[in-house]
Formats: sequence, C-alpha cells, structure tokens
Amino acid sequence: MKGVKVGIVGASGYSGAVCAAILARHPKVELVFATSDKAAGEPLAPRLGLTDDACKLQLLQHEEAPRAAKDADVVVLATNAELSMGLAMKLAEKTRVLDLSGAFRLDAASYPKWYGFEHRAAPALDDAFYGLPDLFGAPPKAANIVANPGCYATAALLAIAPLFRDELAFSDRVIIDGKSGASGAGRKSTEAYSFVELAEDVRAYRVGAHQHTPEIARHLHRYVHGVRPRVTFAPHLLPLRRGLIVTAYMTARDSATTESVQASLAASYEGAPFVRVLPVDEVSAHGVAGTPFAHVGATVVDGTIISICAIDNLMKGAASQAVQNLNLWFGFKERAGLDSLPRFAP
Amino acid sequence: MKGVKVGIVGASGYSGAVCAAILARHPKVELVFATSDKAAGEPLAPRLGLTDDACKLQLLQHEEAPRAAKDADVVVLATNAELSMGLAMKLAEKTRVLDLSGAFRLDAASYPKWYGFEHRAAPALDDAFYGLPDLFGAPPKAANIVANPGCYATAALLAIAPLFRDELAFSDRVIIDGKSGASGAGRKSTEAYSFVELAEDVRAYRVGAHQHTPEIARHLHRYVHGVRPRVTFAPHLLPLRRGLIVTAYMTARDSATTESVQASLAASYEGAPFVRVLPVDEVSAHGVAGTPFAHVGATVVDGTIISICAIDNLMKGAASQAVQNLNLWFGFKERAGLDSLPRFAP
Amino acid sequence: MKGVKVGIVGASGYSGAVCAAILARHPKVELVFATSDKAAGEPLAPRLGLTDDACKLQLLQHEEAPRAAKDADVVVLATNAELSMGLAMKLAEKTRVLDLSGAFRLDAASYPKWYGFEHRAAPALDDAFYGLPDLFGAPPKAANIVANPGCYATAALLAIAPLFRDELAFSDRVIIDGKSGASGAGRKSTEAYSFVELAEDVRAYRVGAHQHTPEIARHLHRYVHGVRPRVTFAPHLLPLRRGLIVTAYMTARDSATTESVQASLAASYEGAPFVRVLPVDEVSAHGVAGTPFAHVGATVVDGTIISICAIDNLMKGAASQAVQNLNLWFGFKERAGLDSLPRFAP
Amino acid sequence: MKGVKVGIVGASGYSGAVCAAILARHPKVELVFATSDKAAGEPLAPRLGLTDDACKLQLLQHEEAPRAAKDADVVVLATNAELSMGLAMKLAEKTRVLDLSGAFRLDAASYPKWYGFEHRAAPALDDAFYGLPDLFGAPPKAANIVANPGCYATAALLAIAPLFRDELAFSDRVIIDGKSGASGAGRKSTEAYSFVELAEDVRAYRVGAHQHTPEIARHLHRYVHGVRPRVTFAPHLLPLRRGLIVTAYMTARDSATTESVQASLAASYEGAPFVRVLPVDEVSAHGVAGTPFAHVGATVVDGTIISICAIDNLMKGAASQAVQNLNLWFGFKERAGLDSLPRFAP
Repeated sequence: MKGVKVGIVGASGYSGAVCAAILARHPKVELVFATSDKAAGEPLAPRLGLTDDACKLQLLQHEEAPRAAKDADVVVLATNAELSMGLAMKLAEKTRVLDLSGAFRLDAASYPKWYGFEHRAAPALDDAFYGLPDLFGAPPKAANIVANPGCYATAALLAIAPLFRDELAFSDRVIIDGKSGASGAGRKSTEAYSFVELAEDVRAYRVGAHQHTPEIARHLHRYVHGVRPRVTFAPHLLPLRRGLIVTAYMTARDSATTESVQASLAASYEGAPFVRVLPVDEVSAHGVAGTPFAHVGATVVDGTIISICAIDNLMKGAASQAVQNLNLWFGFKERAGLDSLPRFAP
Repeated sequence: MKGVKVGIVGASGYSGAVCAAILARHPKVELVFATSDKAAGEPLAPRLGLTDDACKLQLLQHEEAPRAAKDADVVVLATNAELSMGLAMKLAEKTRVLDLSGAFRLDAASYPKWYGFEHRAAPALDDAFYGLPDLFGAPPKAANIVANPGCYATAALLAIAPLFRDELAFSDRVIIDGKSGASGAGRKSTEAYSFVELAEDVRAYRVGAHQHTPEIARHLHRYVHGVRPRVTFAPHLLPLRRGLIVTAYMTARDSATTESVQASLAASYEGAPFVRVLPVDEVSAHGVAGTPFAHVGATVVDGTIISICAIDNLMKGAASQAVQNLNLWFGFKERAGLDSLPRFAP
Repeated sequence: MKGVKVGIVGASGYSGAVCAAILARHPKVELVFATSDKAAGEPLAPRLGLTDDACKLQLLQHEEAPRAAKDADVVVLATNAELSMGLAMKLAEKTRVLDLSGAFRLDAASYPKWYGFEHRAAPALDDAFYGLPDLFGAPPKAANIVANPGCYATAALLAIAPLFRDELAFSDRVIIDGKSGASGAGRKSTEAYSFVELAEDVRAYRVGAHQHTPEIARHLHRYVHGVRPRVTFAPHLLPLRRGLIVTAYMTARDSATTESVQASLAASYEGAPFVRVLPVDEVSAHGVAGTPFAHVGATVVDGTIISICAIDNLMKGAASQAVQNLNLWFGFKERAGLDSLPRFAP
Repeated sequence: MKGVKVGIVGASGYSGAVCAAILARHPKVELVFATSDKAAGEPLAPRLGLTDDACKLQLLQHEEAPRAAKDADVVVLATNAELSMGLAMKLAEKTRVLDLSGAFRLDAASYPKWYGFEHRAAPALDDAFYGLPDLFGAPPKAANIVANPGCYATAALLAIAPLFRDELAFSDRVIIDGKSGASGAGRKSTEAYSFVELAEDVRAYRVGAHQHTPEIARHLHRYVHGVRPRVTFAPHLLPLRRGLIVTAYMTARDSATTESVQASLAASYEGAPFVRVLPVDEVSAHGVAGTPFAHVGATVVDGTIISICAIDNLMKGAASQAVQNLNLWFGFKERAGLDSLPRFAP
C-alpha cells in the first residue's frame, strides 16, 4: 500500500507539535511541510525529539502553506477555528484537509454565538465528516474535509452516546462535568495560566458557555436519532499539564444497572482499538497519559447513571485521533503510527 | 470575657496540626495539652511555626488524653471516626467534646454501612450538635458534643441548602461532583498517594459510596423540611495539596434565574462572616486557600442550576470551622482567632 | 509603647501582598494606605484574607503615594528597583522608607552593570542600612532608608557568613547553587512561566549574571573583614510556588568538621528568633513554608563544607524580614506581628 | 541483520516499565519474557500503552527468570543492586546480562560502604563493561555483563569528563550539585514521598553519602588517566515526576573560556547521536523529558567552570541508555528503537 504525503499548519502549538511528532514517525506518512509563525525558519527535528538526520524539514510561515500544499495529499490544520476556516477554503480545492479546530464541527448558524464569527464556508461545512471513529466509523474516501472532534466532546460522546442509544438513560438531560489540564487551552502567556496562579487551584470556567456544548449535543443527536436530551456542560481547569476526564450524569431507566451500562459500553467499543472499558473507579487521567486510548466506565447509583471517560487531551483529544482518522480515511491500519507511542506515565 | 482551656487529640495529622496552630494563637484560648501517637514526646512549637518560647507543650500519647482532659474545658478530637467515638464516650462526662471526625454526624443505623462499625454511643449521638454555623447557627451552651461537618458536606450544603429552602430547585435530586486535594485523605503512606502517581492525575473514587453522601442528605433534609431530593455524590481526587470545590447540579424551577439563585445565596449568608457569594466563574480553590472562608456562586443554564462552593479542606472543611464552632459555643466573637490567618496564596 | 503608621506601595504583587497581610494584623501597626496600579480602587480586605470590616482601605494609584505618605511614619516599597529608587527620593524627606527592591543594596557604581540603570540617589545609598538582622542587628533609629535584602542573598549570607568569620572556610571562593520557586520572579504573564512550561521543569538561569551575586559579595565582605572569597552564584528555577534553598560549597580548613561548622552556625544565631540550625538533611523548603524562619545546616565532606539554608522567598526572603526590620527599627519586639502566622504546610 | 531475544526482570518498576515499553516496539528485539513480583500473572500490554494484540506476554515471577532466560539472548535486570548481583550470577552462564542497578559499577571493595552488602561476584565485576557509550563506546561483543550507569553518574560524567581530559579544569576537585525528580527513587509508599509532603518542597539528601559518588569518581578517573579530582556530590529531591539535572563546578585553568569549554563538549560528543550541546541557560529537564537525549552546556564565570547536564532519569538515566547499550553490543544502529519515542513535553 502506497503512503501519503502530509503537511501540517501550526506545528509548534501543543496539539500540532504532538501531531507532527506522530506523523514524522508514521510508517505510511511522508511529512512534506510544517508551518509555525512563531518559529518559522527553525529546524523541526529538535521539537519532535528526533535526531537531526531523522527529519530535515524547516518550519515555514503559515502563509506559505497553500503553495507548499501542492505537494501534499492532505493538510492537517492545527490552528484556531477562524484561521482554519479561511485556510480550508484556500486549500480544499488542492488537497484534503484534516482540521483540529472547531471550524467544521457545528452547523453554520451556531458559529456567531459559540465561536464569535460568521461561517463563510457553509457548503464545505455540510460536507465535512465529523471524525470520531469509535462512534461514526471511517471518513468516506470522497470526503474533502474531516473535522477532528474537540477534546471534551470526544470524551463526553464516548461516555454517553451508547447509553442513550441502548435506552438505558432517560432522554431528559445529561449533565457533563468536565475536568481538564492546562494544555487544552494551548500555549498561554497570561497571569491566570502562570504556574503560581494555576498550581494548587481548581475552578469552573465558561459554565454553560463552552463551545463544546453544542458540539456534544449536535453529534449525540445525530448518533441517537430522535433523542434530544438537554446537554448541560460545566468545564473545570485543573493543575495538570495534560489529561482530561468527563463525569457524565444521566437519569437511569429501570433497565440500567452497573452491569447493563458497562455491557452497553463494552459492546459499543468491541472493535475500537483505542477504547477500553474499565470499572468506573479505575478510569483516570494517569491511565491514558501520552497514549491514543480513551478509558470509559459507568455505574448506576440510586437512579443515576454516572459514566466517566478519561483521555489525554493532546492525544485522543487532538493529535492521535487526527492520525486515527487519517489512517481510516486512507485505508491504513487504524493503529498505524500509533503503536509506536509509549505511555507517558509516570 | 474569660478564656477557655482546650486540649487536642491528634495534633500531628493535617487537620489537627492546622487546628492546633490556630488554637495556639487564639486570644481566648489556652492550649493545655496536645497528643500524637507518632510524635509523642516531641515539642509542639516547631510543628506550629512558632518560636520555642511561644508554646512550651510537649506532645502526649493519645492514651494520656482522658487524664489530661481534667484540666480542659473542651477537647478537640482530630482522630478517625471509630477512635473518636470511643474517646468521646470516655471524655464526655468530664469535658465538652468538639469532634472533627464523622463519629457524631449520622444516625446510629447508618454507621455499619457507611463507616464500617457499630455505633456504641447512640444517646450521645442524638444529643450531638451538627456544627455548620452558617446554616444551623451557634451550638447551644448545653451541648456536650459538637460534630464538626465533613469537608465535602460543608461545601455541598453551603452550595445547595438555600436553593432548596427557597424553592428554586425541584426536589427530585441533586448531583454533586466533588473535587478535592490530597490532604483531605490525611497523611498517606501508599503508592497511590505518592507524588509520582498522583501528580498529573485525576480520577473519581468511592463513586456513590463516600461516607459524606448520607451526611449531606441527612442535614439537608433537616434544614429543608419536607424536601427529600436524592443526593448523588461522586468525589474526585485532584493533584492539589489543599483545596476542595463541589459543583452541584439541580433541576431549576421556573423561579430560578442566575439573579434569583445568587440572591438566595446572598440573603442566606448575609450575616455569615466567612461565606462570600461571588459570580460562579470566580469561585476557586485558590481564592480560599489557607483561609476560613467559603466562596459560593450559582448560575442557571438551560433548566439546570449549577452551584459551586470552594473551601480549603483543612480550614473551613475542618480546623477553622471547628474554631468557629468553639467561638460560638463559648460566646466569643465568631471570628476570634481566625482573622490572624493570612491567605496562603500564592 | 506607641504604634506606627505604615503605608505600602505595591500591595498587589506577591511580596507586597504578603507584607500587607502581615502589617494589617500587626498589633503595633496601623496600615494607613496601600497602592497598586493594577487594582487601584478595589478594596484591600479580600486580598488579605480579611473580612470586610477588618480592613477598610481601598487601593490607591502609585502616584498617590507621596501625598498619602504625609500620614505615615514609614512607607514600605514593594516595587521594582528603578521605581523604588525614584520613589525613595521623593518620600525620604517626609518619611522613612523600607525598600524591598534592590535599589539600596549595592554601591552606586554597580547599578549600571547589575540593574541596568544609573543610580541617581548616591547619598541615600550610602546611608541606607542593609537590614539582615540576624547578621547585622537592628537598623539604627536615625536611619532613613532600610534596604531589605534579596531572597537569595538572605539565604546565602545566613549559610556562609559565620563560617568565613570563624575561619572554618578558606577564603578562596564560595560556590552558591540557588534553587527557587516561581513567585520569586513576581507575577508573570509569559509563556516561560506558564504552568505547562514550568511544571516538571528545572533549569539554571542568569548563571554568573544574577543581581544578587554582588549583593552577597558586598555584604559578606562587610561582615567578614579582610576576607574576599570569590562568589560564584548559579540560580535555578524550580516548579514550586514558594520556597528557596541555597546550597553553598566552601573549601574546608583543617578546623572544619561537621561538629564545628554546626557549632559556628548555632553560636551565630543563638539570639536570632527566626533562624533554626538543623542537620543538613533536615533543611527543606517545606519546613519553612509560610513562616518567617530560616533553617540552616552544614556538614563537611571530603574537604568541602556544604552549608544549606532554606527560606520562604516571600517571607524571610521579603515580607516577614521587612516586618522584622520594622520591629527592630521602631523598638518593638522582634517577633511582633510574626507569631500570628501559621505554617503554610501542607 | 538478525534480531535478538530479550527478557526483562522487574518490568513493573518505573525504569523497567519504560525499558519494556521501548523493547516491545524495537524493530530488532523480540521480547520473550518479563517478570514482576507484584503484578505476576497480569498481561503486559496495558502497562506498555499497547493494544492487547501487540504484546501477548503475561508477567512472570522473578524466580521464573532463570528458566525463562534459556530462550533469551540477553536479560535486562531492572532490580535492586543486591538482587541483581544474585540474579546475574545465576544468569550469566546461560545468557548475557544488561544490568540497570549499581551491582556492577564499582570495585568489589566499595560495596559494603556504599551499598551495604558484600559483593560475591568479584570476577564478573571485573569483566563487566560500564556502558556509557558517549564516553566509553560500544560494549565489546565478548562482554557478558554490561553495567548501565546510574542516572546522576550519567549526567555528571557527561558534564565534566571532557573538561578534565582537555585540561580546561584543574584537577583539585569537582563539586556536583544534583537535582532529581521523585521517580528516580523508584515506586514509593512512604509519607515522605507522598504528594502532600513532596509537592512544593525541595531538600538535599544523602549529602556526601550517595552511592553515585564513587561511581562518578571511578569512571572519571578511568576516562581521564592520572587526574584524581575530589568528587563532592550533593543530590537534591525536587517536586518533579521525571527529570534530572546536575550542575557541576570546577576550577577553571587559564585556557578555559565559555568558548573553549563549549568547544570541548562539542568535539567530544560530535558522533554521539543522543548528546546535544547547548548554551548553559538552555539546558533544562523539560528539553529532554521523555527522550533518550542528554543536553549539556558549560560556561566560565570568574574562574569557575559551570557545566550543566539534563537528562530524563528514566530514559538516558536508565531505560533508553540500556537500549542504546544493547544496540551497540549487538551491532544494531545506535538509535534503533529509540527514534520511535516522542517528546514527553508538554
């Protein structure tokens, strides 16, 4: 099987750098260019933990991406949503686009409210494939744009979608308490994200206003037809560098027991190489740190289903899920390039 | 006003040490003895950050407490629940008891299930006063035992009780997502609590089985007569040394708006010197670190009330609340000995 | 004994806030004003962990300081060195100045090289008293300016000065390996000080170029007449919020043994209420966290004296040492206002 | 080129687990067995971040190692020194041994003092090859035992050996200030290593008594014939999970300048794929986290050479250096199996 030529825009951000590190070691991928406005001109190898001869690319400016993209079969965008929208419009005629931002995850009408800009690429949006393979399978070959899911949305959907589909949860509402480390917000130069302020702290932020709320609702509703639970989402910032868990609370139907909810999860993810179902108390950020895995577990307590999912926000929440999508899109083995990653822990 | 002579059992545990540090500086308190099985014989001053002449006590063995208690007006117990139950039975005839454990917070029937032992002091249990002054006021002078609330129970009750009493929340159920640092579990010598394992981790534990669940339910139901919402509680362990927040989710009645829930909290805690009501996004572990304060804030999102409370688990969740109870019980100013504590942060 | 009226400039920086918190609780101090350009107009009480009625001050702008200073007996400057130099010139005719910056610690000729500006207040500089009371005693009543030592300089001088004076160390050179947490650099809004970048990191910075190098040398040479060891200083940044240790290495004379170096330290600090001499392996950041203490210990290994000192960089390294100086300057008890601080740990 | 069959004893300790993770992905290695007394019977794959079909081994008991070793070309020992000594004696007749402990790094006479046991395998000790390839090259094919260096010794020798050999440093003494994260001590179940006690702390330990002191001295003296500087070593424990730096101080000869010391390091490590020479302020734990690299840099300040080396204590300080040795011993490319590791940071 032939390999694929990949370019990446935004290779010095946290998600982009991890994605570039995976791609540079991927047996089916040739990394043909990488951009970073901050570090343009610098060699890429040291940023990826590679010896100098293992990767000879120099970082380009973002604006050089469209020209460089001529040599690429697919371009990965690790840029913010508004920039991704604009780049995708320029690139999508020349090459395929795998976008890590939120630019292609919602319907057009939602962008002004949740992202603060008008979406100017509505047709592309309609055709974009939402790449959460454990629920929605492989991107179709014909797709031009794959939207890589948000970190919270990935964990939340993995924790709750099967339980609604198998009618174990009432469709009244689902409460999602999210907890994430600081790298989820990207590189930060603000006092609030400084070590002194963030260590030993925990707080909620954007309660009811986080842009992953409509993403969770939209794709849950696509996956579980007819069911329209209200989605309430409160994210919290923790003093972790990497790692994310969501704890989801649903009203249990009579059929829901700890056994039946675990069985539902296990059946749903039987063929998913990167989802493991564990007892709820064994799901942890530590267990998935640095890996492409999601760990999921659920239990029923006094009429409430509690379902928890842990991921590494930069891996299954961004970079490794992007590569998982790329593998499926181009017909490689789902885990190609992803077995090579050791566990970060300790 | 005359002062009070206080002894403390368990002065080298985290809560006990912080409590002893406050008491040793309290203008109305004479600390007359302190015990610690681990450190018996050692001087107390260095453990409290005091110069040697500011406190001349040496730590005694626990078993010396009943004899030493003859000189005390009140004994603070910072021991585990089963040990506290036994000590309280021996001490309560000689002196008053202020207990930081769970030994006097539930009805007797709940102990085998939630604490794993039979309660052998049922009459004392019935008479014990549950000391959460911001909701239940001052301990009566005649009380022999004051039960200092659990850390999670303190934060949860402060976040939710007014909202049920003011009929802003439906009485179907309340979901409490708790998040606490490691000192809440006391001094630990297990691999799971080691720095390497706990840093960069977050996980749920004792989901649906934490002993603060019946404590929250019992005292919520006493406070809000007739209302019996189901209490679902999932605590999580975070890589913090100190600090705790609870995020509580309730079904909003029509009368509930962000304004009305904040007004309910503000009215409830108007006279409470150590409770501050803030916008929900400004409630943080950092904001209360090292202080006797609870910060509370609530909002209404899409039919759900989200109410958050942050405390320092060793202060308002244990030691400073004990001193607050002591002050009210003995007729001192509520904040006596508690203004002397600076903010820990940064 | 009459009390003293104190103003503070820079009360929202880390050192300034801790200093204000101590002063606001000090039995002999009336805090008459506080400034903060960032937070001018806001009430001071919540920043100090005080209830609203315990402190009614509102923060002023820095530029209001000279006018407000008319009511003050002494003004504490918690500003950067260049700003302190300017403010001190304006204030010193009206009131005494206690400066936490480096503006009055060196001779004038050293400022361009080490601080990057010309010192325009040379006469004041000559008269300023270097306030390290454990070595240099109380500021004279007549002093107009007290220069509070730098955090590294405090720890380094406490670790080494007695050993040179008692001729236990050869006067060839002293190597000082410094290790400090992030709050030593003040409030930071740079990526390098972000949680993600600083957690799990350790690195040297300003090797051989840190401005505390000439401060250590100058005051060591004043303390130990005739001895001019070269001072080599390499500071390191650690993932701590607060806390600082220095490990100093000196060439041992024949008279130096672990017993004799410990005896030298013990004799030097016999009357110093805030210096404790401990075995070298028991000196730790944890042991002094949140306290006004310095812990010191030394040993001799194979011809080298290793002497270690730990302090809390915001307390003995800044705020509590300032209050210690103020107490001695105005004739209060050395520990006035400083016993009220509990240990931060855990 | 034919591959090699490898077994590993102690695959659930921190170093052993990282080593097993690398070996399980190594293109030239077949992992044939792994042992762990604690986790015997459990599958190995989840511990290595691998999907279940990528590694089918179950963990054995240590005592099964000699039998299992019949199928192995080499056995990696990730056990403590005394256990390694015993196992090596049993295994060395059947197979080659690559030992991560200190059992084969010193001369026999040093063991009672530094390791607390008599060495009973003196002939094997004499023949063991000290595997620090960047200084000593490839293990000879005929070697039966390769002793993998200690973490501190690796970093210290890389920082100082070239500077003594090139006669830039006087041979009087070298002072080595070591700073390491907690995983260097292995899995810990003591209060001192608990999160609450270790976070926000820094302290020296085993000052002058750490077992890497004679290891540094012995191999420095082998590398730099005739030169016998005294080695003074003070290690410090930091609140990091992984990461280690040493800051070494040497007396500069006249020929030593920042340029000449950097040139000496650069020339020494020109062919070393995993050593990078950087300006001294750019050497950091963060820069090498999760990688097989050592970063080294030196400067000259006022007559003192300051040379700093950073490594990941579990990688270049243990597991990846073991694989580097294995590669060279068996004639593979030096970086085989080691390019597959991404950078851990952030």
